[in-house]
This record gives sequence, C-alpha cells and structure tokens, in this order.
Amino acid sequence: MRAATGASFYAPVDGELRELERRLRDVGSGAHPVFREAVAHLFTTPGKLLRPTLVFLSSRFGPGRDREVVLNLAESLELVHTASLVHDDVVDRAELRRNIQTVNAKWNDDVALIVGDYLFAKAYALAAVLPKPEVIAIVAQTVFALCDGELGEITGARGLPTEDAYLERIELKTASLYAACAQGAALLADAEPDHVAALGAFGTNLGMAFQITDDVLDLVGDEEDFGKMVGRDLLEGMPTLPMIYAVEERDGTGSELETRILAPAKSAGDMSALLAEIRSSSGPERARQRALAFHDAAVRALDRLPARAERDALREAADFVVRRVR
Amino acid sequence: MRAATGASFYAPVDGELRELERRLRDVGSGAHPVFREAVAHLFTTPGKLLRPTLVFLSSRFGPGRDREVVLNLAESLELVHTASLVHDDVVDRAELRRNIQTVNAKWNDDVALIVGDYLFAKAYALAAVLPKPEVIAIVAQTVFALCDGELGEITGARGLPTEDAYLERIELKTASLYAACAQGAALLADAEPDHVAALGAFGTNLGMAFQITDDVLDLVGDEEDFGKMVGRDLLEGMPTLPMIYAVEERDGTGSELETRILAPAKSAGDMSALLAEIRSSSGPERARQRALAFHDAAVRALDRLPARAERDALREAADFVVRRVR
Repeated sequence: MRAATGASFYAPVDGELRELERRLRDVGSGAHPVFREAVAHLFTTPGKLLRPTLVFLSSRFGPGRDREVVLNLAESLELVHTASLVHDDVVDRAELRRNIQTVNAKWNDDVALIVGDYLFAKAYALAAVLPKPEVIAIVAQTVFALCDGELGEITGARGLPTEDAYLERIELKTASLYAACAQGAALLADAEPDHVAALGAFGTNLGMAFQITDDVLDLVGDEEDFGKMVGRDLLEGMPTLPMIYAVEERDGTGSELETRILAPAKSAGDMSALLAEIRSSSGPERARQRALAFHDAAVRALDRLPARAERDALREAADFVVRRVR
Repeated sequence: MRAATGASFYAPVDGELRELERRLRDVGSGAHPVFREAVAHLFTTPGKLLRPTLVFLSSRFGPGRDREVVLNLAESLELVHTASLVHDDVVDRAELRRNIQTVNAKWNDDVALIVGDYLFAKAYALAAVLPKPEVIAIVAQTVFALCDGELGEITGARGLPTEDAYLERIELKTASLYAACAQGAALLADAEPDHVAALGAFGTNLGMAFQITDDVLDLVGDEEDFGKMVGRDLLEGMPTLPMIYAVEERDGTGSELETRILAPAKSAGDMSALLAEIRSSSGPERARQRALAFHDAAVRALDRLPARAERDALREAADFVVRRVR
C-alpha cells in the first residue's frame, strides 16, 4: 500500500517504517492463536502508515535520538488506531476495510471485541514504558477522545449535525490521533515547546483534512481505488460534511433530502438516487474546499519549524492527504 | 454490598475502601454523558470489592507507605475487572449482574463496547503513572490473560473441557487478576521478594477458589442471594467444573448428559431437568472440595508472611470466598 501510493514523503523514515511493519506483524506472537491470526490478517496490508510516518518525521525536530522510544510511540498509536477501527467496525457492522474483510466479518463480533481489547492492551503496554509521563498521558487522552467521539456517534440525536458538531466529532475521532502522533514524537525528541506546538497544530489540521477527504471519497470515490464500499456513511445514515452542505444548498434542514439521508434503511434505488443527488450538488466540492482550508492551516503551522528535509516531507504528506483517491 | 456481607476482613482497610468507592463513582466526570451515566450505574452497587481489599491488605506487608500509589493500583485493577465484565456481558448476552441490569441490556451492545474501552483506558491511565515498571507490566499482563481466557472461551472446541483445561481457563480469566492485586500491591510497598511471592500465590489460589465457588453457585445458588440468574452457564452451554464432574460420574464424556449440557438452545423443561440431574450428582460437592483445596493452598501461602492483623484478615477473606452464598 505504502509503495503503491508512490509518495516520496516516506523516504526519510523508510528504515523506521520497515522496522515498525516488522513489529506490527509480530504483535500476536505468544498470544492466543485466534489473536495471532487476526493480527496477521490486519497487518498483511498495513495501510498508508500516515500516522507512524508523522511520528517518525516529527521526532526529527528535536535533539533526542532514541530510536527505540520513538518506535514504541509509533507502534502504540498505530495499535490504538487499529484497535479502535476493529471496534468501530463492530459498531458499524462493516464488512470491508482496506479492501480486506473486517475482523467481525471474517470471524464474528465477539472475536472482534476481544481482538480489539487485546490490541488496546498491547498499545498501552508499549505506551507505559515511554520515558515521559506527559507522552503517556497524550496516548491515554487520545483513547478517551476516540471513545467520546464514538459515543457521540452512536448516542447522538438523529438529525443532521451542524457543521460545528460534525467538525467536533471528527476532531475527537480522527484529528486527536494525528495530533498525538506529531506532538508525542516531538516531546519524546525534546523538541522546543514552540516546535512541539507547531507539530501538534500540524497534526490536528492534517487529521481534519484527512477525515473530510475520506468523507468526500465515501460519496464520490471509485470503489476499487477506495478499498471500502462507496456510500457506506450514506447507507448507515451517518451524516458527513458533504451531505450537510448538500442539504444546506438544496432545501435546508428539516427538508425531504435530510430525511432521505438520515433514513436508516435504504434500498439500492434510494442509494443511487441519493448518491446522484449529492454528487450533483455543491456539497462534495464545498467539503473539499473545507479540507483544503485545513490543509493550508497545517502547512502554515510548518512555517514555524526549521527548514529541513523532514519539513518538506510533512508538506508532501499534507498535499497527499487532500489529493489521494483512497 | 460490602456492609451486607457482614465480613470483618474489610475493617483494617476501611478508609482506603471508602476513598476507592468515592473515586470509582467519579470515574466518569468530564467524559461523555452516556459514559457518566454508565459509570453511575456500574458503581452504584460496587460489589464485594474483594480485589481492592486484597490490594490494600497486601500493601501492608512492605515498608512502603505511599497510600496514593496503592489507591491507584486498586482503582486501576478494579477498572480492568469492570471493563472486562462489561465486555464479557456483551459476548455472553447477559442481562443481569450483581442484581442490576448489564450495560448491554440497559443501553445496547454498541454502548457497552465503547464503555468498556473507556474503562480500560482509565485503568491504563492510572497504571501508567505507577512508580514501578514491573507493576505496570503486571497490569498489562493481566489484561492479556483476560483476553486469552475470553478468546479461549469463545473460540474453544465445542465439547466438555478436561479438568485441566477448565482450570487453565479460570486461571486466565479470574485468578490472574487476584494474583495481580496481591503481588502488585506487595511490590509497590517494597515487600521482601519472599513475601511478594507468597502474596502472589495467595492471590492465585484465592482466585481459583473464588471462581470454582462461583461456578458451583451458578448451579445450586439461590437466585435472589446470588444476584445473577442461576443456571446461566448451563443455559449458554458453558461447561464448568461441577458439570465436568457430573458427566464423569454419570456416564463419561461423549455421553448423553454431556450432549444435553453443551446444547446451545435449551427449553425451560431441559433446564430444570438438567439442573436437577447435576444437583443430584456428586458434581457440585466435588467441585466444592476442589475449591476448598485451593482455599487451603491460599491459607498455606499465608504461613510465609509475618503474623499480623492483615494476615488474619486475608485468612478471613479466603474463608469468606468459599463460604459465601453470592
């Protein structure tokens, strides 16, 4: 996957990424056979590894050079991310992710629940040995944010959220993890407080840009490129920014389009009509513009960092996030 | 609940237990409202608090007197325990625990999944600040053991386990946590290595005695006293030691009784016939004897500790565990 993106921003941290991939594949060793199989399944295609790349690049902005602790942070946060995906897929009844079957689809919900618990436990065990309590606290805060975001999602009032409520949800569910990667790594490397803050702001804005782009791709993406079923958010009645904008443009909240978007059960006919209607609205394009605004904020944060190859790579990663097709 | 047991072994650590109860009720503060409500629900009747009592009593066997770190360990392990119960109740489709509705019954499986994740995260955040890495490792190892045990349970071959396989499962799922309480607290208190080992052995054997007693009560207990539905293990086709012994006595494995015990769906008539048959066998009594053997091993471990009030209290706790009706 990483190679398939053809992106050059991985290059400065290629060694760390390879070591991380090796460690991720090894996470199940010594554990229950079903957990080992699930780990092998999950990390066969380890995805884009944007978060670990952010960890490794950010760690280059301080004098600290302890490769081992930075690897531990990257592995810990990638496991937090994977664990939360495994649990989210149970809640969302998702069957496909990154073009492979979800754990709940391949095994069942019960196995996915425990596999997620296991991954969280591995993540925390790695975080617990990090040499800085404030970084351990960042990992814990990130998990709380993920849980808050997920609880908000599953217990939220039925209805179209405001733009602000949507942005708050994706900040909890996505951007907090990106921020933790950048900020945690900078702290571990003893970067200057200004640079830690700049990297934190970069991570938050990158995460926001990433998620909005993901939500646009869910509506307009090509299924094969995207690696997930297109229209999943819509099928589940999970409103995203392009839908919010589409309703705003068409006929306002409380409207017929809103009701159809939020409907929990949709026929194939409903789905294609809705997808066509949203695609022909200005919703996806306005959402892309919003993603680009976060991208630009991320790039501006980079101005507060010293010019070096790693800063260029972060800039390229930000460009990649809003340009990608999957 | 604690008061209702009328047990005197709580007395030496009453102050710590009250402080712990206060902290447990406060775990949800600042978090998502649904999590706050779930925490209030879970800790309204905080149960027997055997595990924290074990932490506080064990911490008295070393010169260390840092009350705060011992409270953190107790809270962390109680949250690990509660989180794993919340997730187990999802897997087991349980509706009642400690005479109150489970989180999955009161809300739903999705909420229970995230509430459990939240509790685990709180547990780890507390563990992470403990001053001894080996104690942090004990907490992590305990979660791995719980996950291994649960995975073994949900993916195990259908069929009656051997006595050894049953004992291995309850060691992972129950005794590991008791051992962590006793051993972790002794380590935090800088107890002598001999005393740490003795307390670890006490915890393991106490946990084994507790779980076997619980499994006997599930078959012979009074529903109102027991606070859970009686016969739940049987209803789910989850074989426990009294059933293993009953089959052994009656007609051996592969028999008709084994098939009826393992059947996943049982009518009310099947249930009462099976309960009567198992109760009239020597199964429950033989299992009680096995629990008593673990109790005796726990008590023998106490001989390796200095004589003091806390040792007497641990002895009383062990007696309580095998004598209790719930």
